[in-house]
Amino acid sequence: MADTTELQAALAALNATAAFNRWSGFEVRCLAPGEVELSMPWRDEHGQYAGFLHAGVIGALIDTACGFAAFTVAGRVLASHYSVSCLAPAVGSAFVARGRVVQAGRRQVFAAADLFAQRDGAERRVAFGEAILVPVEATPSSSAAAAAASPDNRRP
Amino acid sequence: MADTTELQAALAALNATAAFNRWSGFEVRCLAPGEVELSMPWRDEHGQYAGFLHAGVIGALIDTACGFAAFTVAGRVLASHYSVSCLAPAVGSAFVARGRVVQAGRRQVFAAADLFAQRDGAERRVAFGEAILVPVEATPSSSAAAAAASPDNRRP
Amino acid sequence: MADTTELQAALAALNATAAFNRWSGFEVRCLAPGEVELSMPWRDEHGQYAGFLHAGVIGALIDTACGFAAFTVAGRVLASHYSVSCLAPAVGSAFVARGRVVQAGRRQVFAAADLFAQRDGAERRVAFGEAILVPVEATPSSSAAAAAASPDNRRP
Amino acid sequence: MADTTELQAALAALNATAAFNRWSGFEVRCLAPGEVELSMPWRDEHGQYAGFLHAGVIGALIDTACGFAAFTVAGRVLASHYSVSCLAPAVGSAFVARGRVVQAGRRQVFAAADLFAQRDGAERRVAFGEAILVPVEATPSSSAAAAAASPDNRRP
Repeated sequence: MADTTELQAALAALNATAAFNRWSGFEVRCLAPGEVELSMPWRDEHGQYAGFLHAGVIGALIDTACGFAAFTVAGRVLASHYSVSCLAPAVGSAFVARGRVVQAGRRQVFAAADLFAQRDGAERRVAFGEAILVPVEATPSSSAAAAAASPDNRRP
Repeated sequence: MADTTELQAALAALNATAAFNRWSGFEVRCLAPGEVELSMPWRDEHGQYAGFLHAGVIGALIDTACGFAAFTVAGRVLASHYSVSCLAPAVGSAFVARGRVVQAGRRQVFAAADLFAQRDGAERRVAFGEAILVPVEATPSSSAAAAAASPDNRRP
Repeated sequence: MADTTELQAALAALNATAAFNRWSGFEVRCLAPGEVELSMPWRDEHGQYAGFLHAGVIGALIDTACGFAAFTVAGRVLASHYSVSCLAPAVGSAFVARGRVVQAGRRQVFAAADLFAQRDGAERRVAFGEAILVPVEATPSSSAAAAAASPDNRRP
Repeated sequence: MADTTELQAALAALNATAAFNRWSGFEVRCLAPGEVELSMPWRDEHGQYAGFLHAGVIGALIDTACGFAAFTVAGRVLASHYSVSCLAPAVGSAFVARGRVVQAGRRQVFAAADLFAQRDGAERRVAFGEAILVPVEATPSSSAAAAAASPDNRRP
């Protein structure tokens, strides 16, 4: 995969298959191979106790932006590790995570992302993070890939 | 706060104020001061593209279990940093995160959690993680606490 | 590798080949497959500006304890990612890191470690951390393994 | 503190007080407030078993670059948390870590750094990481600061 238009179509299709992404209202845009933008409108169900964006949803945006960036260079991946740093209360009418591949290896893809809150026409960085993604196709014998390949055990 | 029964009531009340927790079906149980159990039934909207529990929801469970554990010793906190390691595809009919305080300081509370998938009567660890939580009340002049105290900017 | 005595000998030999470990005075003990203890006496060159153990040396102990634990189940590994949480000023006459494998996969080994300061006959946990290790032998074609296999580019 | 020349002098003085930094040959340069460059020549005692730069020393460079960047905006700090991602075997005749403050709060300073290996006139990024630093002076009553202020318990 190399052409941004094709990558965009593949990403949009992948995004549409993820139930949590659909529920959350995630929309993805491929800026370039290895670079994506993931946006989400605020909805009340995204809030934590003080009404800010829940740190779990912050992590979901950062992890997903990293995973989508990795997908554009390595195909299907699974998150192996990610971390999130919360810089400021995440308050906004919409949020956008910008993810980029730092380095893509055969066994691990390193990616990073920043999360911005949009509010009253302005944008403020509220979090950043990083992820390690493991390509799925490369290792059909791995337990994760085997589980992914078997429709029977994909659902509880 | 010290009595487990009182902590349980305070945690349940806090959990009920968080919209994402309600939507996700989070239920919390205080095992002891500094120790909580957070459970969640599977729902289809929690899935990623392959039908596993979305890594973002995995992180939400780990972050929330850590935050609730911290709450039992330090009152209201905000997540400052957390990390998640995904050990196996998270597939189950329900999930339970067990969180514990590692060390509670005046400015930072360190906590850790494990996430287990429950399926066919068995339980398997699928992820673990850690979090740094910052107490809110201790510093009314901090930007996060100030934002929390001002109802006007709590919602977009 | 399975016998603790053999693992102990292999670990001691590996430890002796690492120049930083020798300089630092690292000593390793295999407690069981997947479980090691790494000790180090204080020396003045280990200090940061306030005279505590340097956070970099704290990380070196945690990373090495994780790597050695991984070695006992997966052979030679390279560190891919590690994180360190500093709980208290690390002050002691000696330090001991206890590392354990959390889960060993074919492509990644997850490990964790705690670091204790020993002082006046007492022991206090001063840090904890985790690491992701990548087995070297499993993938001779990976860049890291290729570099490791080529003596010519092992030294500047 | 605001002037780069003054910051440079303060940083060099701080660097000189850290025994590990002196032993390692760390040299620091302030590029701007919140931005530093930390360099180190290779020495054989820095190696791990395969002769690469030890991951612990990689972490020491990243943690120290982050801490020095934080120092230029917040004064004396202690590392609370840091993480390191190793992208490639760290082989070089010298290494340089470039650190920057991501956000400086009253209680926590978030910083990030990249590590480059220099070899045959070329430079290659071999690692990156991030750190959370806690200002020391701001909280004289904290245990860490109290320990720092008391010469008696600074050394084993």
